[in-house]
This record gives sequence, structure tokens and C-alpha cells, in this order.
Amino acid sequence: MDQRIAEQTIGRLSLYRRLLDTLMRDCVEHVYSHQLAEKTGFTSAQVRRDLMAVDTAGNTRRGYDVGELIRAIDDYLYAPSGQQVAVVGIGNLGRALLTFFSGRRPKLSVVAGFDVDEQVVDRVIHGCRVYHMDEVDRVVAEDEITLVMLTVPSDAAQPAADACIAAGVSGILNFAPARLKVPPSVYVSHVDLTMYLEMVAFFARQKDGDQGD
Amino acid sequence: MDQRIAEQTIGRLSLYRRLLDTLMRDCVEHVYSHQLAEKTGFTSAQVRRDLMAVDTAGNTRRGYDVGELIRAIDDYLYAPSGQQVAVVGIGNLGRALLTFFSGRRPKLSVVAGFDVDEQVVDRVIHGCRVYHMDEVDRVVAEDEITLVMLTVPSDAAQPAADACIAAGVSGILNFAPARLKVPPSVYVSHVDLTMYLEMVAFFARQKDGDQGD
Repeated sequence: MDQRIAEQTIGRLSLYRRLLDTLMRDCVEHVYSHQLAEKTGFTSAQVRRDLMAVDTAGNTRRGYDVGELIRAIDDYLYAPSGQQVAVVGIGNLGRALLTFFSGRRPKLSVVAGFDVDEQVVDRVIHGCRVYHMDEVDRVVAEDEITLVMLTVPSDAAQPAADACIAAGVSGILNFAPARLKVPPSVYVSHVDLTMYLEMVAFFARQKDGDQGD
Repeated sequence: MDQRIAEQTIGRLSLYRRLLDTLMRDCVEHVYSHQLAEKTGFTSAQVRRDLMAVDTAGNTRRGYDVGELIRAIDDYLYAPSGQQVAVVGIGNLGRALLTFFSGRRPKLSVVAGFDVDEQVVDRVIHGCRVYHMDEVDRVVAEDEITLVMLTVPSDAAQPAADACIAAGVSGILNFAPARLKVPPSVYVSHVDLTMYLEMVAFFARQKDGDQGD
């Protein structure tokens, strides 16, 4: 399987899913592929192909049933019993992630934090207890945590990832500016903030150039 | 120009640039394309193609001169006089970004923060003064700010972006879970944290499945 393509499909499904939440809140019952296309910037054909992957069919007259489509995407994206997430590294970014994801996705629950700083260990932040990294084995097993968001300093990233993986974690969202070596049984995605900012800086300057100043 | 490809090129250059910093710190003077390829997971041919774009040539015997390559990439990625950045929305994520980018890239200086909360307005965080959003016009002009990182709640994202654009900002790195409508003269990139976590959750589960549990 070409994983690049699959990642993009999952990315688009995640985006449709959130648009559908908005439609649901606005009491919209049906939506056409061309409406989802307009809101996302993808083509209608792309939208239809993606939604075919989650095994749901639109109705040519009224489009997709919003509630049905939400259920179909959820069945595809999420584990039936949900997945538990921990944040490793409770600095500003770690706190921001705890806050951001608190209750946002019922099937992805942030249930614990980890740090080595005694100032934050044992505190409860947004309903999540922060544990010492020494307890990662016990807490990951007890809380059935399979995913971590890693927001530690770059030199602490690999040891922290190793400890999480040894404890049973199989997915890492890495915010630390360091590439991680992980066994093939673990999936890692890197949110590279420096790259994002450099990209915006570069293309904003191209835009400025386009306008001749 | 196919902007997708260009964005990926800039992303890779940004990554090489940081690897070169590490080599420089370790007193490595020369590097081969295959070494950069190994460290990044791209092919040697891809690395050579990218470095050709920044107008620098390796030496078949000793590879690229690390210092020269850093200067060449910097000349390509950055404006000669640098670009000034502001963070809009000084919650946990905003603070994390101020801290993270403080001094990290000399040609991209985070110089100001903006918020509407009187609790943070006028405070100085990591050397950056936080101003009230009402002052965005004046401060953006005086500090020659062209880029903002947007970390406001989703319903405040569009008005905040509009105010920044009216003040002269041409690049936005948007962390708010909202799609922004901007004029064609403005470049926006969206860091979609929910999408990242959903993607890790999905593929980590596939990995678990591969192992048969």
C-alpha cells in the first residue's frame, strides 16, 4: 500500500468529519459532495472517492445524510472502544494540547500527562493527572494508553519515546524538534513547527514579490 | 508553478538546514548527499535536486561544504533583512510558540504578541510585549511584522486574521480549528492538530492490527 496516499485520505476524512459536525450543529440534514468540495477546496470527484472508502453512498437527489455520514466516517477513523492518549512533557505546549483535546474527540481521550519536573508531577490539569515518567509502564498499562503526544526538549525525545514504546504505546505524535528511531510496529508523525513557519515566511515573501514591493 | 511541489521543496530545505546546524555544532566540515538522504529518508537524487535549486554544487570527492550550504539555503529561504513575526492569541499554545521560537531562527524574529484579555495585555513574555488587538495596526506597521501565528479560539480566527491582513500581514500560520478566507495576496498554512492526532490514531491501530492483536 502507498502509505502517502492513505495518509492524505485519512487527513481529508478527518476534515470532512469536522465540517459535518458544523453542519449537524446548524441542523443541516443532507449535504452534496460538491458542497463538501467547496468548503474544503478538493474536487467533488475526490470527495466522492474518499466517501466511497468509508462505504457510504450519496443519494443523487438529496446528497449524503449528515448523521449517517458522521457515523460511517467515525466507524472508519476510530476504534469502536476508543483510544487513550497521554501527553508527555507538560510545558506550555503540553498544557495547550491537554486543553485543546479535552473532550474534543470522544473516541480519542487524553487521560494522562507525564513529566519529570516535580513542580507538575501529581498535579491535575484539565482533568488529567500528571505522573512522573518513572510511572509510565504502570500508567500506560492500567489506562490502556496506545498513543502519546511528545512535547519534551529535543534531547529528551528519544529516551521518552523509547520508554513509551517499551510500555506499549504504538503511535507517537512528535512535537519535539528531533527525528525519532522507532521499531516498525510503531507509527510516528512529526509536527514540525519550524518547517511550518519557514514555509509561511517563504511563500508570504513570494506573495509580497508578486505585488512588486 | 505547481505550488504543492514547491511547498514540499521548502519543507525539505528547512529540514536539511536544521541537520546542517547539527553537523556544524559537531564540527563536521563536509557532507555527501547520500548522508543527508540517510538522515532524512529522502533519496540522494532528491537531495541533490533540492540543493541544485538553492544554487550550490557538491564536490564529488568531499561532498558539500557545510558552512557554504548553510549560507546558500539561508539565502534562499530567508529575506536578507529577516522577517518579523507576531503571535496572536496568548493562551498556552501562544506562550508555547513564543518560547519555542525565541531565538531559534535569527531571520525569523518573534517580536510581539496580541490578545484581548487584559490579564495578559502589556505583559512581557520571553522578551515579547503583548499588545491589545486594538493596537494591531500601529504595532504591525512600527515593527514591520509580516507574519503571524494565529492561536485564537475558532470563532475569533477570521476577525483576527482580517485585522492582521488589514494591518499589512501577508503570511498566517493558523493553529485555530477554522478555515480562513483570505485575499490571494496572503499565504495561509494550517496546522491541523486534530487531523494529526486522528492520523496517528488510525495508523497506530493498523500497526497493532498487523501484529494480530
